[in-house]
Amino acid sequence: MTAPDEERLARAALCAIAEPGEALLGRLIDRVGARGALAVVRGAEPVPDDVPLTDRVRARLAAWRARLDDVDPETDLGICARLGGRMICPGDPEWPMGLNDLGDRRPYALWLRGCADLRRHCLRAVAIVGTRAASPYGMRIAADLGAELAERGWTVISGGALGIDGAAHRGALAVGGRTIAALACGVDRCYPPRNEALLMEIIERGLLVSECPPGTEPSRLRFLIRNRLIAALAQGTVVIEAAARSGALNTAAHTRRLGRPLMAVPGPVDSLSSVGCHKLLREVPPARCVTTSAEVLEEIGAIGADLAPVPQGPVLPLDALDPTSRAVLEALPARGSAGPAQIAVKAGVGLSTATGRLGQLAAAGFVERTRTGWRLSRPAKPRSSPARRPP
Amino acid sequence: MTAPDEERLARAALCAIAEPGEALLGRLIDRVGARGALAVVRGAEPVPDDVPLTDRVRARLAAWRARLDDVDPETDLGICARLGGRMICPGDPEWPMGLNDLGDRRPYALWLRGCADLRRHCLRAVAIVGTRAASPYGMRIAADLGAELAERGWTVISGGALGIDGAAHRGALAVGGRTIAALACGVDRCYPPRNEALLMEIIERGLLVSECPPGTEPSRLRFLIRNRLIAALAQGTVVIEAAARSGALNTAAHTRRLGRPLMAVPGPVDSLSSVGCHKLLREVPPARCVTTSAEVLEEIGAIGADLAPVPQGPVLPLDALDPTSRAVLEALPARGSAGPAQIAVKAGVGLSTATGRLGQLAAAGFVERTRTGWRLSRPAKPRSSPARRPP
Repeated sequence: MTAPDEERLARAALCAIAEPGEALLGRLIDRVGARGALAVVRGAEPVPDDVPLTDRVRARLAAWRARLDDVDPETDLGICARLGGRMICPGDPEWPMGLNDLGDRRPYALWLRGCADLRRHCLRAVAIVGTRAASPYGMRIAADLGAELAERGWTVISGGALGIDGAAHRGALAVGGRTIAALACGVDRCYPPRNEALLMEIIERGLLVSECPPGTEPSRLRFLIRNRLIAALAQGTVVIEAAARSGALNTAAHTRRLGRPLMAVPGPVDSLSSVGCHKLLREVPPARCVTTSAEVLEEIGAIGADLAPVPQGPVLPLDALDPTSRAVLEALPARGSAGPAQIAVKAGVGLSTATGRLGQLAAAGFVERTRTGWRLSRPAKPRSSPARRPP
Repeated sequence: MTAPDEERLARAALCAIAEPGEALLGRLIDRVGARGALAVVRGAEPVPDDVPLTDRVRARLAAWRARLDDVDPETDLGICARLGGRMICPGDPEWPMGLNDLGDRRPYALWLRGCADLRRHCLRAVAIVGTRAASPYGMRIAADLGAELAERGWTVISGGALGIDGAAHRGALAVGGRTIAALACGVDRCYPPRNEALLMEIIERGLLVSECPPGTEPSRLRFLIRNRLIAALAQGTVVIEAAARSGALNTAAHTRRLGRPLMAVPGPVDSLSSVGCHKLLREVPPARCVTTSAEVLEEIGAIGADLAPVPQGPVLPLDALDPTSRAVLEALPARGSAGPAQIAVKAGVGLSTATGRLGQLAAAGFVERTRTGWRLSRPAKPRSSPARRPP
């Protein structure tokens, strides 16, 4: 069910008047829809009976109302569309189910830029976060973990920042994998400026996601609110390096609150940038200590198999595959299965390449391993992803 | 209650015919005493009714009996005495209570060399263990932790080996603290030879402990059995660096079996010498992640305060104090208390030296902190430790 245009416009307006994740606004939208909530803010409709009209509620409503005059949702949507972006709403096919766990604090809408399908990419997604002031050790581990998890078909979600975030995104991109940057500013902003090239590459090959309309500048508050989005988009969160008061610990707290696996990578105990990770490992209950991508998958893989919606068919469009993976895919017989050596010969690639790509194709839902080799997944025809238009 | 001479001789003989920690022999000693057990081994007495006479039991008894001819406990005790050492038995005043937790596998006797009182030193003792093939990082952390815990009045127990063990002992010695090396060979051997100077220093200022009579060479089996002694002498164990199959993990397993706090120091995840520590942090339940001496004390300090016998009076003889600590101690008024600045002036040392030494003296039971400063502990006269003679 896709939201009708007026609901979308109302949600775009609400994004512009309120900070993301305000529980009061979330509750209003739940009760009377986005248009109804906007009418309440305007004063055109009464506050619903089950929302107690306290002084705090009156103050919030007044603050939002004061911003109504400056809001132009159609222009915002137009700017986003001109950038090749789109806004999605709860109920849209691309809306990730995991966001519903945020309850009253779920996003009013999400602004996206990039080629990827957000919902499908979030079916197997892991957040990798950490300090901006990362050590060479942390940068190396973040890049390795990002690359290895992306190679195994997992989407790497992070915050697009300097340090660990950037290294994790780059690791995923380096192996042709998927990555999503959740921003604390509009998707038209390049923040931090030094990551402009990275963010552009993520638009080309992944997604930028924000709860704020175009033009929004980042702020400390927005970074903190954005962190719950990173936690909620992923099946679990890995903290690689974090100082004692790093924002990454805030993402960790959101992950715990959501009941999702929280993992921390240890480091030297005399390194200030690992203090936050060790703090997480000393909490009761402790974050899970992870040192390899296999250990990360041990935590979130089970959740993926047991609790997350079972992926129906491929989670990547066929035409998003690189030429080698495509050749391997096309080397599979139309019926029955084939061994990896046979597939390698037919695809014209080495055996280890073939087995590696088959693993990725399996993770992406294109192929399945059988007792006698590999076969195309049923339904065999991978759906190509529908062209998406901004509303 | 001190064991009579014949019991001691029997225990010395049992140490020589059986490997340490044989549960069958422990059970026999429990039922019929050490002399009785020796008589059973000789065949002079029947096996007690409640010890089922299986083939395995017969084989063990035969193996021990075969060694009886070569055993000369009086010579062993004489060698030990000439080295300035002594043998202690369960029930002796110096026997550490914590060893009783080993049940049937507790030592038949312990051979000691050094000036310290084993029981008193084990009242506040922490085991620091790790790999022989330590990294510079591990060596640094082991030395720091050894020094800091010793400074706070804790005895550092380790295995006298190269790598982490040696660094922990040296750290404790560097601050004038207490340290005990539990050996897998006789206390007359210097193993490893490269640690000869260290072991000599430990004899001067701490203790060498072994379950084996003089002349015993180390063996792989004896190292593993020795590890349970390290775990049982300490209130808790810290593993600093350990490869995937390090003997330190064996000490860790003994610590868990004894129900004592097991701690692991994390390190870089791409360092092979931290793999074992991370394995411990990933176990269910995990070892406690510790990064500082304060965090170590958080784990074992509570046990010390809540469960261990409260030290009665000083746990160090007065004449074991270095001149500076002695000067600080003598600067305290005979009645009432004094502030640290006043004490520093009277002792002729700097303020930070005075406060540091006061902390150590408090940990050793000589002084107490009051609301108005420091005072001598009551009963004020530190007992000097009785001269000990080998039996």
